[in-house]
Amino acid sequence: MDLTIGVDLGGTKVQAVAVANQRVVGEARRPTPQTDATAVVDEIVATVKEAASAAPGKVVRIGIGTPGTITGDGHVSKATNVPGFMEDVPLGPSVSKAFGGVPVAVDNDVRAAAMGEFHRGAGRPYRDLLGVFVGTGVGGGLILGGTVRRGRGSAGEIGHTSVKQGGRQCSCGQRGHVEAYAGRMCIELAARRKQAEGADTVLFEIMKRKGRDRVTSSVIADALERGDALTHALIDKAVEALAIGLANVQNTLDLEAMIVGGGLGDRLGAPFIRRIADAMTPRLRVPEHPPVMLATQLGDLSGAVGAAVIAGG
Amino acid sequence: MDLTIGVDLGGTKVQAVAVANQRVVGEARRPTPQTDATAVVDEIVATVKEAASAAPGKVVRIGIGTPGTITGDGHVSKATNVPGFMEDVPLGPSVSKAFGGVPVAVDNDVRAAAMGEFHRGAGRPYRDLLGVFVGTGVGGGLILGGTVRRGRGSAGEIGHTSVKQGGRQCSCGQRGHVEAYAGRMCIELAARRKQAEGADTVLFEIMKRKGRDRVTSSVIADALERGDALTHALIDKAVEALAIGLANVQNTLDLEAMIVGGGLGDRLGAPFIRRIADAMTPRLRVPEHPPVMLATQLGDLSGAVGAAVIAGG
Repeated sequence: MDLTIGVDLGGTKVQAVAVANQRVVGEARRPTPQTDATAVVDEIVATVKEAASAAPGKVVRIGIGTPGTITGDGHVSKATNVPGFMEDVPLGPSVSKAFGGVPVAVDNDVRAAAMGEFHRGAGRPYRDLLGVFVGTGVGGGLILGGTVRRGRGSAGEIGHTSVKQGGRQCSCGQRGHVEAYAGRMCIELAARRKQAEGADTVLFEIMKRKGRDRVTSSVIADALERGDALTHALIDKAVEALAIGLANVQNTLDLEAMIVGGGLGDRLGAPFIRRIADAMTPRLRVPEHPPVMLATQLGDLSGAVGAAVIAGG
Repeated sequence: MDLTIGVDLGGTKVQAVAVANQRVVGEARRPTPQTDATAVVDEIVATVKEAASAAPGKVVRIGIGTPGTITGDGHVSKATNVPGFMEDVPLGPSVSKAFGGVPVAVDNDVRAAAMGEFHRGAGRPYRDLLGVFVGTGVGGGLILGGTVRRGRGSAGEIGHTSVKQGGRQCSCGQRGHVEAYAGRMCIELAARRKQAEGADTVLFEIMKRKGRDRVTSSVIADALERGDALTHALIDKAVEALAIGLANVQNTLDLEAMIVGGGLGDRLGAPFIRRIADAMTPRLRVPEHPPVMLATQLGDLSGAVGAAVIAGG
């Protein structure tokens, strides 16, 4: 059996799936080494092998979704969250070599996730869609007329569209972006600022009790369930920023569907997506014809499955 | 010689061009009747005949760019600025009948203008571009991979994307849109409000001296030249709103080029476009790789030429 391995490289984990006949037949997940690029590449190779070992067959292609800037020959750089990946890393060639020269396709992680949902997930009925992934940051993957939109390489950066002039500072240094309100990291920073200013919150207590050193999606979800006022206020702002940003995309492109995923999007799920839709629709140029708003079907496998699709699996 | 006639229908004028072998060989322009739909359709027919009479040959196709909602069979409705065109008007069939049944293509006016610049104007070197037309309102026409983007019918509404939460009221009733700051009508309304509040301005004096009943693009240009502080402040805000709105489009789509036209865009020209570019670039995700920013080449003929292109001429 010919196996295509799809890999989703992130700052905290490497997720791989083995795909045969367009179905996931194996999975593996390992923490991203926090040391250097060589260790990260070795761990990717190990994760690919582990995913492949779950099914009989031979690895014939590998696709990797990665953050950062990607060049045509599979090199990656400027991936802030992956150790050693700020410098140029020959990701595609290195992984290919480890598997005796099998072809390795390297693409943007968010675009891969959108491709996963489009070809194998919630997006299958549509030709035009936006995948919006709300996690540490906020990324977008556009499919227009059945084709992924790359532009000159950086299309889909909806997290860095502006929704509030002079608003909250974003991870990129600018102000008022969608990500400044809806990205998990910016939410955590805003919560810390508010707490330092005297706001009462159980958010960091929950974080510690869960043994985490950052405010994860599940910490946020628990705080919401506990009725934490600060967390509710921050998520209200996230919903509003996403609603404005997505309405802007919709008024520009008139898409059929939007799929909301990512760590926070998947964790908060349908009620969160419904709130975004409700706040977005009145802002549309044609409010009687909004896009279909969907959760992901593949959850945190969207990226790895999409990377396999991009590789041809 | 086979003539294709392209028509640009607006609230104040009907502009037609006769095209043969992809070149404009005739032009005609008449004021839009301010009475009813029948009078408007008759005037379109007369303008087509006048444009055609400028060159020897036979009218074999007609293209019409119109505001409002367009159905597949060439009917138009909800065009607020054209008398009688809020109701359903069988525009395509009526004009076709007047010319013995020649095929008539009806499309959106802004999209037609973008097509005109893309195929016959400033956009010829590019495959991906946005035409942004700053006139009474602000409209956008997207060309992606050489194809006009329609979506489900309403793509390109960049004038109604949000740049300032709770900002100035737009002609559509919502707040903080690009058009609320950059559309000529909204600029005029803002100037009237400011004057009523006591602001000093020569804008309305210039308007009267020119014998106009509204603040036209040339009135605005004259006031700027006279150093009118209020007009300068309003145009500063227009530049900023356009810069944010266009940066949002660019971060979403990563286009090769943007062409700024429309009554106000064409009148204020290169210095206005340079200011928009200068304010937009630092807001880009990839500021070292901005889109090329261009003026129109066809000026106020973009729409009529584009309508001819859409008809096949």
